[in-house]
Amino acid sequence: MNALFDVDVKGLQWSNDGYATLSDVLLDKALELDGIIRGWAAEFGATEYRFPSMISVRSLAPIAYLKSFPHLATFVTSCDRREESLKSLADECGTAEQIPVCDDRMEPVGQLLTPAACYHFYPRFAGSRLASPLFLTTNCQCYRREEEYLPLQRQWCFEMREIVCIGDSATIERFIEACRERIETLVDTLGLDADWQTATDPFFDPKADPKALAQILEPTKKELCTRDSVAIASINKHRSFFGECYDIRFDDAAAHSACVAFGIERWLYAMIQVHGGDATTWPKLEPVR
Amino acid sequence: MNALFDVDVKGLQWSNDGYATLSDVLLDKALELDGIIRGWAAEFGATEYRFPSMISVRSLAPIAYLKSFPHLATFVTSCDRREESLKSLADECGTAEQIPVCDDRMEPVGQLLTPAACYHFYPRFAGSRLASPLFLTTNCQCYRREEEYLPLQRQWCFEMREIVCIGDSATIERFIEACRERIETLVDTLGLDADWQTATDPFFDPKADPKALAQILEPTKKELCTRDSVAIASINKHRSFFGECYDIRFDDAAAHSACVAFGIERWLYAMIQVHGGDATTWPKLEPVR
Repeated sequence: MNALFDVDVKGLQWSNDGYATLSDVLLDKALELDGIIRGWAAEFGATEYRFPSMISVRSLAPIAYLKSFPHLATFVTSCDRREESLKSLADECGTAEQIPVCDDRMEPVGQLLTPAACYHFYPRFAGSRLASPLFLTTNCQCYRREEEYLPLQRQWCFEMREIVCIGDSATIERFIEACRERIETLVDTLGLDADWQTATDPFFDPKADPKALAQILEPTKKELCTRDSVAIASINKHRSFFGECYDIRFDDAAAHSACVAFGIERWLYAMIQVHGGDATTWPKLEPVR
Repeated sequence: MNALFDVDVKGLQWSNDGYATLSDVLLDKALELDGIIRGWAAEFGATEYRFPSMISVRSLAPIAYLKSFPHLATFVTSCDRREESLKSLADECGTAEQIPVCDDRMEPVGQLLTPAACYHFYPRFAGSRLASPLFLTTNCQCYRREEEYLPLQRQWCFEMREIVCIGDSATIERFIEACRERIETLVDTLGLDADWQTATDPFFDPKADPKALAQILEPTKKELCTRDSVAIASINKHRSFFGECYDIRFDDAAAHSACVAFGIERWLYAMIQVHGGDATTWPKLEPVR
């Protein structure tokens, strides 16, 4: 069941479709970890949001998401409402092993499953004129289509908690520094072995994508990686990218933004690596400040 | 923004795509309500699970889901991995207003977005030989394609908490009775106006579906409905339906099962109807036992 680990993991069930089911003590640890980060967000005065995993394709057009990451996208559709379409679908795929093909019975794809929790925030605040910096947080199931999946490390569906700041660059620098300190203290407390590395996003065609070039010329993404290069957290300085794309302004200029993201299953992976598959024996996951 | 209500609702943002974003005090209330039901589940000794919203089409074949409900299904797909498919998708839909059509670049639909939280449990325990009854709980974002959506009342994406019992019919009767009591006490405490009604599921072609006929001949579904017929909770006795479909056995016979389901956004709707759109003025949502 967890053949990819050298250890049995209590409360983990892996599906070959590319996602894990968490239960028992492992789910408790996921919730505790999320609670710690949510606590940090509260210290910044962040407002919490609950979004669906669905996000409209149009709301991601300003950042040209499907141009940069068509290979990662997970699409949502449904059968059109015509009686004959629904009946033929029911007859073909109702009970058999046959699965639906994407043909003209299926509606055009208006929605994706979001590849990152924070993508919900920028369309939400599009057109805003901010008088003071915004601090935001959300936990969302995110989806990324990949060639191969590995339990907890690389999943089609995974849980991401993010804290986002939108405002001026000085506030954002302080926000990032405060997050970095908290993350490093937590990593030490939990006895994890992880280092910050400069990273770039996995663009589909980096040579043709100005955003990819910009990330290489002026690195803006730092990932906290385990010894085997699994990123458990990332700090992303967007400069004025989202502010310009979504017309969010602060103090008469395009707002700057940054997000700090945590892959909940990957933290569990890092804990299992160091402390084993029985989460009842792990160091206590409690707020470190 | 909330034109469908006569009141302003703090912490609610509605998308015309058919889903709500919750924040602030309204999200707090959603979490508190979920916590109450989770507390009931703990009293039954239920194990909690965290599933993705995705569920494989094949895992729902034993209950012929797509035969009974093709009109409600939300499908998941992605672009095939061929370079030319991805490139053409990126070129067509990268930045423009054009959204992807479902054509042969899209992979066959192996996954749905689950229409009910408990559907994850029966495939999970397929083939089990139970020595004692199982009590289970989960909260999951569920998806149902509908003709029209209304904020909090009828959404494409919504949050469902369920408590499930799989075992013998006597245990299940006691479980249902205990849930009904807790629900009625909570409804009274919150000052809501809701009544139990006999219901049937919205089958695509009821005349041709033996499961629809069975539900009419021997009612097994009770819904707790507001005055304007919005179901905020349901009690569903499955008898041995899932036990037979998924070969789950208890005490040498097909296991019986039941689920008790709560639509979190609909409870918020019921509260708004009675207590108004400012959740800070609502009666306290705390455990009633």
